[in-house]
Amino acid sequence: MSVPTLQWLGPPRGPAVALLDQTRLPAEETVVICETVPELVDAIRRLVIRGAPALGVAGAFGVALAACRGDDVAAAARVLCEARPTAVNLAWGTRRALAAYQAALGATPGPNNNHNPQRLAPGAALDEARAIAAEDAAASAAMARYGLSLIPEGARVLTHCNTGALVSAGGGTAFAVILAAHRAGRLARLWVDETRPLLQGARLTAYEAQRAGIDYAVLADSAAAGLMASGAVDVVLTGADRIAADGSVANKVGTYSLAVLAQYHGVPLLVVAPVSTIDFGTATGSDIVVEHRAAAEVTTLSGQVIAPEGSAAYNPAFDVTPPPLVSALVTERGVTRPVTAGNLRLLRTRPPQRKSALTDVSMEL
Amino acid sequence: MSVPTLQWLGPPRGPAVALLDQTRLPAEETVVICETVPELVDAIRRLVIRGAPALGVAGAFGVALAACRGDDVAAAARVLCEARPTAVNLAWGTRRALAAYQAALGATPGPNNNHNPQRLAPGAALDEARAIAAEDAAASAAMARYGLSLIPEGARVLTHCNTGALVSAGGGTAFAVILAAHRAGRLARLWVDETRPLLQGARLTAYEAQRAGIDYAVLADSAAAGLMASGAVDVVLTGADRIAADGSVANKVGTYSLAVLAQYHGVPLLVVAPVSTIDFGTATGSDIVVEHRAAAEVTTLSGQVIAPEGSAAYNPAFDVTPPPLVSALVTERGVTRPVTAGNLRLLRTRPPQRKSALTDVSMEL
Repeated sequence: MSVPTLQWLGPPRGPAVALLDQTRLPAEETVVICETVPELVDAIRRLVIRGAPALGVAGAFGVALAACRGDDVAAAARVLCEARPTAVNLAWGTRRALAAYQAALGATPGPNNNHNPQRLAPGAALDEARAIAAEDAAASAAMARYGLSLIPEGARVLTHCNTGALVSAGGGTAFAVILAAHRAGRLARLWVDETRPLLQGARLTAYEAQRAGIDYAVLADSAAAGLMASGAVDVVLTGADRIAADGSVANKVGTYSLAVLAQYHGVPLLVVAPVSTIDFGTATGSDIVVEHRAAAEVTTLSGQVIAPEGSAAYNPAFDVTPPPLVSALVTERGVTRPVTAGNLRLLRTRPPQRKSALTDVSMEL
Repeated sequence: MSVPTLQWLGPPRGPAVALLDQTRLPAEETVVICETVPELVDAIRRLVIRGAPALGVAGAFGVALAACRGDDVAAAARVLCEARPTAVNLAWGTRRALAAYQAALGATPGPNNNHNPQRLAPGAALDEARAIAAEDAAASAAMARYGLSLIPEGARVLTHCNTGALVSAGGGTAFAVILAAHRAGRLARLWVDETRPLLQGARLTAYEAQRAGIDYAVLADSAAAGLMASGAVDVVLTGADRIAADGSVANKVGTYSLAVLAQYHGVPLLVVAPVSTIDFGTATGSDIVVEHRAAAEVTTLSGQVIAPEGSAAYNPAFDVTPPPLVSALVTERGVTRPVTAGNLRLLRTRPPQRKSALTDVSMEL
């Protein structure tokens, strides 16, 4: 990207969080500057920024923003966590920055002004947000490496929604694997689900693919089944917005549809997500709260009416894929399969750098 | 409809074929007047009129138009048949009117001018076109009656694309059944797949449902899977554009996707189509020529760019559903199941009015 997905602005322009406005892509690259937490919450709700890892960083920057402004930081964190209910990373990043802030605030004051906790706590929140961003970038690189090991030569990959640099402080999740496959010369073709209703595939993934020089084609989501039946898809790659403790994957609406279709056609489905996406506090898929969004997202398109006025719409932002339909979960700590509660617990406690039997890269595709 | 789907205009305004412009719906009800066969072919290609039964009537009116104008009728029929390759009814209706024209032309001249074959042949083509339209309306009514017997009380029906009065000289195919269920008080909810890329569901089916007072909601095609998983769909109803002799169903892209998903979730899929949709000259599903349409249908929407300029698209207009995924085929001659080559052959030779074991209305839903 010539414009970063999200960026902290210090003085003199800040404190503020600058976001590439993804609602305007691919037509224009404009930046939204959020100088307050309500502005940031509004931007998150309007999907100026979206995607699980980027929301984690954005939430943390939001806490730093409240702290730098002298706002009520705990109240700001609560509002940030609730901006979008399904993506667990938003609450996770927000709470990490809040904890760092509160820990700094609770520290014993030092002998001089430089150790005044009131003064240092905002910096601690900002440091934590930057640490999350750096970890996110490192996690993207690790996911790309692990995921690449599962991509065969000449692979024709189908992906859904947008999972690249636009959802991350790094290279993203599923798209980071796709980009690695492209750079390794293994990617023969990328099939881009347009991803209705908000067209994150057609607008954003196609934009990232075009910039990377990938040979891609956009398709209506409903055309994926026939494409699989024709034998033109070797593997399906998606990200995740929340993974329950049992391995159920909440992701952009349509992912579950692809998962059923992939299984029917014998095509593996790889879910690529950092460990922070696993919500051990949510036991099963049915416990995941799925965000339902406005009917207008379905009945209009960029202000253009595409259904009769007064039409109701069923518009869940996500669906939930049961773990048996997920061939493997690619994380920054390795590849896990089968996706089970036990394997996810192992992943949680496993240090990132070690190799173990959990890193199973022998999956046949 | 306040404006008929298609209509023959005689003198003084004709000869011409008047079509309700479905590309403008639901925003405006405008009429396209085709005074020549090339104008009609252009309208068919641009989807001013679409849907299998209506295309049969349109093709027949096209032959009558060429005959009335004194054009080369056989050449006009060839062009009409090729306007859209997948919908078999277009060629079927065109050839029926051509045969009627040629038969009248070959008749022995009578003793007076009233029996001049040159003069009577155009009227024979027009009569045949009107007969096709009348049969189509009668077939719609019969399909509605047979289909209704398969719809349970309180049914929540999911449908794809548009299959009502807009695709027919009568009440349509799948939507005729839906309307019958609504009038019988059996329809609790209609789920309308928006049907990308051309949104025939959101634009046209929602329009027909709203006018009929049906409780409906539009959804992105990819949301159907989660809806089925939630238990909110009792039956899926679609039309068909061409049915091969083995029972494979070519229909609007996304139908095959729904068929796989319906089977996975234990939801029956009913295909509603007149016997004229069965193409006994096409042996199997893989012999069906699937029309691929312009990338711009996917990458733009009403002139609005929704993917980066230069994006390729995979845009088949149809997909093919193998017969084991179709729970039953509802025709004007009764309900057939299982959908097999043998049962389709029986259907072909069966007189419309008789009842036999082939009319199986005992299917459990």
